[in-house]
Amino acid sequence: MSKRVAGPEIERLIQLLAKVPGLGPRSARRAALHLIKKKEQLLGPLADAMAEAVQKVRVCSTCGNVDTVDPCSVCSDQRRDGSVIMVVEDVADLWALERASAMNARYHVLGGTLSPLDGIGPDQLNIKGLITRIAEGGVKEVILAVNATVEGQTTAHYLTDQLSGFDVKVTRLAHGVPVGGELDYLDEGTLAAALKSRTAF
Amino acid sequence: MSKRVAGPEIERLIQLLAKVPGLGPRSARRAALHLIKKKEQLLGPLADAMAEAVQKVRVCSTCGNVDTVDPCSVCSDQRRDGSVIMVVEDVADLWALERASAMNARYHVLGGTLSPLDGIGPDQLNIKGLITRIAEGGVKEVILAVNATVEGQTTAHYLTDQLSGFDVKVTRLAHGVPVGGELDYLDEGTLAAALKSRTAF
Repeated sequence: MSKRVAGPEIERLIQLLAKVPGLGPRSARRAALHLIKKKEQLLGPLADAMAEAVQKVRVCSTCGNVDTVDPCSVCSDQRRDGSVIMVVEDVADLWALERASAMNARYHVLGGTLSPLDGIGPDQLNIKGLITRIAEGGVKEVILAVNATVEGQTTAHYLTDQLSGFDVKVTRLAHGVPVGGELDYLDEGTLAAALKSRTAF
Repeated sequence: MSKRVAGPEIERLIQLLAKVPGLGPRSARRAALHLIKKKEQLLGPLADAMAEAVQKVRVCSTCGNVDTVDPCSVCSDQRRDGSVIMVVEDVADLWALERASAMNARYHVLGGTLSPLDGIGPDQLNIKGLITRIAEGGVKEVILAVNATVEGQTTAHYLTDQLSGFDVKVTRLAHGVPVGGELDYLDEGTLAAALKSRTAF
């Protein structure tokens, strides 16, 4: 064990920073030192921003997005097409799709994927909320924007079953070659899917 | 530009997190989301720890270490050998040496290295403080634990000159093969130094 160099307050800051994804024990120490050196410009504002986030951030009761208002700014945006719901696993996916700015629709965050081995069944995910939204009417299309993983696809199949009773079109994202991707580095599954879904040039 | 997904509070948190060393814009977003999800367990405590650090952390007026007390816990530790001062460039170096637990001595943090091109001369570093400490007497050895870089070595030479008038032994860290290091990957300078300083086996 290393000797105590700095006060317990600094040690505690380092320990907490080490829990931030992207920072390990070593980089947490470096980050803590940098923050302490930039006390006025960075550490103070960051402490305030975090305290504000703790106080204000909440989960949208409609779609499961995180925001400072409920319903979130996506759900309350009247310019969005309310007839299309993009179902995503996680808020990070919602943010990624928003950055792509490809669709101006609404979202629904599941909060994970079906994973029986981890004890995550339909009741652990925000599926009931999705059914309720669709049962309320007005939704014409549900895009299953889940990850192209086994868990994601299993969840997609389950949702398709659940939604079969409603008059909604259920679609999924296209498989294919990522833009900028090199064929040489792609797996067989992706290449086969890209060939199967080939389009006229 | 991406559309606004979350409230300005979350955007601000992401922007500030991106300034933390080790986190970029992309990982800052991921970190923010993780922190928001773990609001009670992580974001709250981290906000508190940061606010506490802002309030309590100060620079030791004796050695330049950062701590919540002044003089710092290293300087006020009576079990340490006050006759030896290890001169380091940065607080991070002090922490690294403490983790090595190799010496039970005092420190002196310069706050950088001499770098005329960047406008960093002797007055920009905590050199006067070092001279004062040595002039007060009681110091027998000054270990120049600066980095083995050109700037570090230049600073070491300057300090040696400055300390030549005092009755203190000035030493520097040994050059050689890092423990666990493979010769194959070492530069010629290190190998030459390791050979020159070879010891009896």
